[in-house]
Amino acid sequence: MVIVMKPKATKEDIKGVEDLLRSLNLGVHISSGSERTIIGVIGDKRLLADTPLELMPGVDRLIPIVEPYKLVSRAFKPENTVLNIKGVEIGGKQIAVIAGPCAVESEDQVLSTARFLKSLGVRFLRGGAYKPRTSPYSFQGLEEDGLKILAAAGKETGLITVSEIVSAESLHLAEKYVDMIQIGARNMQNFHLLKEVGRSRIPVILKRGLSATIEEWLNAAEYLMNEGNYNIILCERGIRTFETYTRNTLDLSSIPAVKELSHLPVIADPSHGTGKWKLVTPMSRAAIAAGADGVIVEVHPCPNAAMSDGPQSLNFESFSGLMTEIKSIAGILGREL
Amino acid sequence: MVIVMKPKATKEDIKGVEDLLRSLNLGVHISSGSERTIIGVIGDKRLLADTPLELMPGVDRLIPIVEPYKLVSRAFKPENTVLNIKGVEIGGKQIAVIAGPCAVESEDQVLSTARFLKSLGVRFLRGGAYKPRTSPYSFQGLEEDGLKILAAAGKETGLITVSEIVSAESLHLAEKYVDMIQIGARNMQNFHLLKEVGRSRIPVILKRGLSATIEEWLNAAEYLMNEGNYNIILCERGIRTFETYTRNTLDLSSIPAVKELSHLPVIADPSHGTGKWKLVTPMSRAAIAAGADGVIVEVHPCPNAAMSDGPQSLNFESFSGLMTEIKSIAGILGREL
Amino acid sequence: MVIVMKPKATKEDIKGVEDLLRSLNLGVHISSGSERTIIGVIGDKRLLADTPLELMPGVDRLIPIVEPYKLVSRAFKPENTVLNIKGVEIGGKQIAVIAGPCAVESEDQVLSTARFLKSLGVRFLRGGAYKPRTSPYSFQGLEEDGLKILAAAGKETGLITVSEIVSAESLHLAEKYVDMIQIGARNMQNFHLLKEVGRSRIPVILKRGLSATIEEWLNAAEYLMNEGNYNIILCERGIRTFETYTRNTLDLSSIPAVKELSHLPVIADPSHGTGKWKLVTPMSRAAIAAGADGVIVEVHPCPNAAMSDGPQSLNFESFSGLMTEIKSIAGILGREL
Amino acid sequence: MVIVMKPKATKEDIKGVEDLLRSLNLGVHISSGSERTIIGVIGDKRLLADTPLELMPGVDRLIPIVEPYKLVSRAFKPENTVLNIKGVEIGGKQIAVIAGPCAVESEDQVLSTARFLKSLGVRFLRGGAYKPRTSPYSFQGLEEDGLKILAAAGKETGLITVSEIVSAESLHLAEKYVDMIQIGARNMQNFHLLKEVGRSRIPVILKRGLSATIEEWLNAAEYLMNEGNYNIILCERGIRTFETYTRNTLDLSSIPAVKELSHLPVIADPSHGTGKWKLVTPMSRAAIAAGADGVIVEVHPCPNAAMSDGPQSLNFESFSGLMTEIKSIAGILGREL
Repeated sequence: MVIVMKPKATKEDIKGVEDLLRSLNLGVHISSGSERTIIGVIGDKRLLADTPLELMPGVDRLIPIVEPYKLVSRAFKPENTVLNIKGVEIGGKQIAVIAGPCAVESEDQVLSTARFLKSLGVRFLRGGAYKPRTSPYSFQGLEEDGLKILAAAGKETGLITVSEIVSAESLHLAEKYVDMIQIGARNMQNFHLLKEVGRSRIPVILKRGLSATIEEWLNAAEYLMNEGNYNIILCERGIRTFETYTRNTLDLSSIPAVKELSHLPVIADPSHGTGKWKLVTPMSRAAIAAGADGVIVEVHPCPNAAMSDGPQSLNFESFSGLMTEIKSIAGILGREL
Repeated sequence: MVIVMKPKATKEDIKGVEDLLRSLNLGVHISSGSERTIIGVIGDKRLLADTPLELMPGVDRLIPIVEPYKLVSRAFKPENTVLNIKGVEIGGKQIAVIAGPCAVESEDQVLSTARFLKSLGVRFLRGGAYKPRTSPYSFQGLEEDGLKILAAAGKETGLITVSEIVSAESLHLAEKYVDMIQIGARNMQNFHLLKEVGRSRIPVILKRGLSATIEEWLNAAEYLMNEGNYNIILCERGIRTFETYTRNTLDLSSIPAVKELSHLPVIADPSHGTGKWKLVTPMSRAAIAAGADGVIVEVHPCPNAAMSDGPQSLNFESFSGLMTEIKSIAGILGREL
Repeated sequence: MVIVMKPKATKEDIKGVEDLLRSLNLGVHISSGSERTIIGVIGDKRLLADTPLELMPGVDRLIPIVEPYKLVSRAFKPENTVLNIKGVEIGGKQIAVIAGPCAVESEDQVLSTARFLKSLGVRFLRGGAYKPRTSPYSFQGLEEDGLKILAAAGKETGLITVSEIVSAESLHLAEKYVDMIQIGARNMQNFHLLKEVGRSRIPVILKRGLSATIEEWLNAAEYLMNEGNYNIILCERGIRTFETYTRNTLDLSSIPAVKELSHLPVIADPSHGTGKWKLVTPMSRAAIAAGADGVIVEVHPCPNAAMSDGPQSLNFESFSGLMTEIKSIAGILGREL
Repeated sequence: MVIVMKPKATKEDIKGVEDLLRSLNLGVHISSGSERTIIGVIGDKRLLADTPLELMPGVDRLIPIVEPYKLVSRAFKPENTVLNIKGVEIGGKQIAVIAGPCAVESEDQVLSTARFLKSLGVRFLRGGAYKPRTSPYSFQGLEEDGLKILAAAGKETGLITVSEIVSAESLHLAEKYVDMIQIGARNMQNFHLLKEVGRSRIPVILKRGLSATIEEWLNAAEYLMNEGNYNIILCERGIRTFETYTRNTLDLSSIPAVKELSHLPVIADPSHGTGKWKLVTPMSRAAIAAGADGVIVEVHPCPNAAMSDGPQSLNFESFSGLMTEIKSIAGILGREL
């Protein structure tokens, strides 16, 4: 950490900061410039986490040098993390395609989708049983019944099942029925829930929050790892900007950025990221080209009858086309579907 | 709702939409323009909540006309809601000042602050027992012990106590110890928690989310009211923008906007809204001048020893000055402190 | 356009709006709902451009239905525009790669870069002679001398030259020396300059503004076309968001979005879009995969001696790698470099 | 400036940076931490403005310590700047109210407004002759004829006249007709125009850009001062965020922030800042309460016939009320209207 002193800081001010740092066994380097003095702090920054140095006399501001997260960082673990979920790897050579309806609506809907996905070689089936909806008057999901439908579809087809959880209760139910869970964008900083999921060992897709920086997203993953759950897949799903043509702005530059900063696998969600089914295929291609380890895509047997997010769901035919296209892109990057 | 058809929509497309709407007992008005046909839909829009009309052949897009919330809207209840909390009103003539440390750290800290606030005529004491922190390595709060300290300070001084909750468990504990609770910005769309709090009758300060539109914020309040909790105070606490000089951008225009759209009381949090103690007093003045029903301000006996958010906390002397200044502004607007 | 009346609008209010519209020879369709009346307006919306209908008694708000631009829209011209610039096409089968230093610094620098680019099969050479810089104390460009250096390099190598203009004067000088010009993000809504460039016939790369919506960007292009300059290439270069890890957030979803809305070619600038050279190659791949007609990339013989934007420039070796990678991606999409 | 080295930087890397800095006669302080080395640089940072240190081997990133602007900073000039424009001060005890129609439409419109403003004690008359409009099909202003109308109204009433300029040509015309000019948000980083206006001595209102940080805004003012024009009034007019209920988000915290960072006067524009006339009065009160030196407000004799921005203009009666209200607020702060 670097402490920048005010132009008018006195010698006593500087001494005061120095003494405090030394009392915490931190190393201190003082650079007195023509306009200001800056103080370099050496040692474990966490010793300072709850000391508001900014308020000491003469201090102008603090500048962090080292990232606040550790376990998720590539500095801590230089090689890529490759998860193995029921024999299928994520983060390795293979591109993961996770597909299915936004919301579980009925056994028929899920089973027909699962069979179709299976026929295309997809390994992961997604479906929402707990739906976080902006309005209390929108469809809120089938809850446990939805999880049962997913479990049945998984059993029949062998697909690995994924569903979003929104609370400790839904987490514990999901653990009974599905293979992986998802923490949605609106819960990315629900730290209480992060700790609960951290105490589980179930693989988790951690979506980036609507207005979360990359650093905050990695800190959320650190919450999970700090509690012991290392089975994390990060998922870029679009951030909120002033643009209204798309539902969100899918920040694909976060893919190579996260790959530099962290060892965790990272995938993209072009369905929520754009909110428009016509943009899903080009943005899936782009995500794979940017280096993503996979995509999570909404597919519905009949999007114009969907109870949630129909306008961003692909029908079977469009999804088929998407698979063909990303397979070619994956090949260019030395990866496979 | 208005349905905008594509320029090339056929007569069959238009008929298809019309038939669907009529089958739901909705009224239909068709306007055929030179470039496009638009269809006005009359009746209860909620009948359409889960029908993705956007995907019907020939449909270009949907435009909602009526707000998705109802109970919180001023159209539903034209007169201002005035809450009465242990004999003190919020939303009426009196400006509410809610003050105290960001985090409860010790009995001494809270009691000395409470006595000081009491001496200035403040009626509400805030203090965080559960702290949502970006990093798992930051101080997370004293939890139940913190609530007990608040309760003791409330008992001694008669101040009305407020604390943030982050989960069903913390809600139920808070109900035992404090008079009001707060839902933080990061939980504004934790719909599971909203429903829990909605089933309680405890007064609740609902903060605006970091990237929540005013409409989403009012929808979050609708979740609470839909479950039966009508004791809601909205709180503007700054939104996330590209500006980095301030911690957030305190959107004071949301104050008069919410006053137009809703009957609920609305206050402002200039401490989190700016992140800089020097801006807290001018922005408190501005909030009251904009029509806020109160402010929530961080005060600490010794900000440079605070364990959380020290840089945005006022010391006793600065807070005294703030009280004098907002009292004068309140008077101009025919209100009192 | 749709006019939404207030819930309490009177019959007289509605009559007032209707009469005004009819007096302008516009068609009127009135739908009286249970809560509100809405009025559909049929005819040329531009008749209403400067009439603030929002202020008429009883009017709540207006909702535009048809886009405000015309000449740039795909509805107006369904087939793709393919520009032919000195025999090289942009917007057709071939992917355009436009490369060179951020700023023209010396004859040596530009010539060595141009020869290198030529050797790789690149057709377009970019270089900044007029540099819009945030601080007046940063290097502002070589101006006319810079243009001369570009012209000389173009003459020797046969590369098509591109440079940014910032004023009418620099436009007229650029027309003497280079083959194409660029309007930078900060000038996207410099309408005075747009009109000047519109009166020229020089091909122009129109960058998206830092906080411009896609609609505003297309409106800026409409300014150019409205004055008669049809030789336009749109360029996504990143928008400003709260994320600080990247210099901007490159919004690749704007590529397929613009392709739907407009017939104009669209390229991406991953150098300014990310501000980090390590992200330039993955984001170039992603841009091509998303459907871009080309990329514009900063290349410098010695990035760590560059006078402007060195950290986002590729050296020759990295650029060579980029060319190989995007060539493969282009092939997948049936295009070529 | 602080240079943060990578965790794996070698001794040679560090030596390389040190040697470069010393060769530029800069002071160097090296702090070797447990994880990284950081290097403090002492001396005139501008020596480094165009050296991309980020690219030297072993360098991770640079952190600026001192602001890039100088002449506008309060460190450079601690006391407030008070402008005297034709005998009326801005930035001193008196609150400046600048009012008038968005666009000059006719002599009648401007004169009737000017007389009305004069009767209320207003000193400044604004009116747009050059209108930057998003669409080329919107009303673009009366240009020189508009300036003449303003000049005539100023002559008759003695009001000080202000109008926006958009180019060197319009600047030179404006200098002939009006007393002050305005640089609009979309031209805040039109550096060519800033230099032109800097070479004039006409008082200038410099609006904050739609997506400009406070630092960029102050840098734009530095462009003006660096060319010799010290007669600058900064104007907060709202920034672009995800919120769509208001036209922009008026960032009132920039008022006290700018007051800390700079000696220049700063005013607010609640008309463009909110886009809704009902919010103009409360946000004007708030701006004055936050410490603004004035407000600039759109007033129109008949807003529902205005050719530009009618929905955000006050009529005479509402403006009268606004004057009364801000007068009281000003009094509380020891200022006067």
